[in-house]
Amino acid sequence: MSILITGVAGFVGCNLAEELIAKGHVVFGVDNFCRGQRENLAKVIDHPRFSFAQVEMTDLDAYRRAFDAFHARDPITEVWHMAANSDIPAGVHDANVDLRDTFMTTFNTLELMKAAKVPAIAFASSSAIYGDLGEQPLVENIGPLLPISNYGAMKLASEAAISAAAESYLERAFIFRFPNVIGIPATHGVMLDFVRKLAATPDNLEVLGNGTQQKGYLHVEELVDAMLFIRDKAADKVALFNIGAGDEGVTVRYIAEETVRECAPGARISYGEGNKGWVGDVPRFVYSVDKLRALGWKPKLGSAEAVRKAVRQIVAQEASQG
Amino acid sequence: MSILITGVAGFVGCNLAEELIAKGHVVFGVDNFCRGQRENLAKVIDHPRFSFAQVEMTDLDAYRRAFDAFHARDPITEVWHMAANSDIPAGVHDANVDLRDTFMTTFNTLELMKAAKVPAIAFASSSAIYGDLGEQPLVENIGPLLPISNYGAMKLASEAAISAAAESYLERAFIFRFPNVIGIPATHGVMLDFVRKLAATPDNLEVLGNGTQQKGYLHVEELVDAMLFIRDKAADKVALFNIGAGDEGVTVRYIAEETVRECAPGARISYGEGNKGWVGDVPRFVYSVDKLRALGWKPKLGSAEAVRKAVRQIVAQEASQG
Repeated sequence: MSILITGVAGFVGCNLAEELIAKGHVVFGVDNFCRGQRENLAKVIDHPRFSFAQVEMTDLDAYRRAFDAFHARDPITEVWHMAANSDIPAGVHDANVDLRDTFMTTFNTLELMKAAKVPAIAFASSSAIYGDLGEQPLVENIGPLLPISNYGAMKLASEAAISAAAESYLERAFIFRFPNVIGIPATHGVMLDFVRKLAATPDNLEVLGNGTQQKGYLHVEELVDAMLFIRDKAADKVALFNIGAGDEGVTVRYIAEETVRECAPGARISYGEGNKGWVGDVPRFVYSVDKLRALGWKPKLGSAEAVRKAVRQIVAQEASQG
Repeated sequence: MSILITGVAGFVGCNLAEELIAKGHVVFGVDNFCRGQRENLAKVIDHPRFSFAQVEMTDLDAYRRAFDAFHARDPITEVWHMAANSDIPAGVHDANVDLRDTFMTTFNTLELMKAAKVPAIAFASSSAIYGDLGEQPLVENIGPLLPISNYGAMKLASEAAISAAAESYLERAFIFRFPNVIGIPATHGVMLDFVRKLAATPDNLEVLGNGTQQKGYLHVEELVDAMLFIRDKAADKVALFNIGAGDEGVTVRYIAEETVRECAPGARISYGEGNKGWVGDVPRFVYSVDKLRALGWKPKLGSAEAVRKAVRQIVAQEASQG
């Protein structure tokens, strides 16, 4: 297959590129290096089956030139659309961030796929589309969907646009509702924050909120595995799946303690108040992966083990960059 | 109250303006007269509590000038956002139509409300956000939401953006998921199509599809009544309600027969094939209004009576315009 990955230099994109190349596919990648980083492509950039273009996807003409050039060389059979804003608070502050980077990247991708008759899209959606449904388990068929961040809103908008496209001209669409994904290369998130804070003040870690916020975490390697599994096994024309560890998750306190244990043993941890980190952050939810389990996939690591692995990797990443 | 109605010259907007003025409010209106028509404002345009600006809402600077001028005169307390593309097939053909007229009008409205600190929005959403969920009753908490038209997709995107805004800076949001709404001034829809076809060929009515497509219909006067009822009675910060007649609806065949009876008795009705009118049209659904009933509202007319009333009104409208 010939696959275009958008946001290929991002956290998920580069892991996905490595795996798809390893599986023998031709992989094209685009990124604007706004949040994605050139170093993240180190393992794939020289591979003969990988090609890259630095493109601002919101510039439709520029994106079309890159897209069509790839398509002319080896007709694209699938687009894996991973590009998005990943800074949720930035999008809460200014809605234009997610409009542009989370939604318009999707919209423009669909426009180009329609014109070039590319038949299938795989999309990185998010548990953020569910908003705050309280104690209800977040299953794929729950509603109403009232996201509390512009990030979640524009992911939901993207799902909707993809769904309409599937009715009209796409042959297949895969919508993956990502959980909190961890691993390397880490570009943001609570673990990286903690590691960096401890690098600056090794005797003290200040935690936003009271540490009781609890979430499930999935390692990026397992996320990629799950996406490819769904791509191969799902039957629906629009295949929509939550992906996650399927456990109760771990608290921020656990993550803080693991990070301290790994990189600054003995450091004091001081907590703030409340269990919400910022506007747009959902304090606690049960993320159902029953549908994915029924399809036959389950993760090797639970949230706690995934956190431990990711913390170790992030500490090593930061040490190598320092 | 001081209320801005967007799309005020459209079908719902002008009926809403009349009612809000009758209730004693100050009403500001904007419209670009793309689909809305100046004649639709005849009953309100000279009222001392009504002001109008012709504005392209997708031009944020132009929209801001009109918005801020209204707000300076009489601080806007609510925006009733009715502006949208209403031509579903046009949006299926070109996704930019609904991006611009259905979604970006919402996005820009929220930007201006945030800047001006306008606390509440009421939004005309649609049953189209549900997509095709088969025989399942469409209740507000069903999912997944996979709209099959760009119209439905951009209505869902608008709901999502409003929801995120409510978490961040709005005090209240009212999301009304409209059913098929009928009445006058009719600008599109199956009844107007039939009346116009019969005006052109009075002995024969050609129907798209086999006539078995069945939908519920609500008269616009009742829609306005329901919206204002929800506005007054609902408790949730984001109050989301299906609005509809709550009955089984009527078939296209019934509408064809009623139209023929009203304006061309004896005309032959010829049907096409299939029960889907066009890409993006949902063939049949049960639209639950249990939540609205529980709040205490129910319509005076069922779908069949609403259709009869609307057909008579549309025939009279067309006769007066001919």
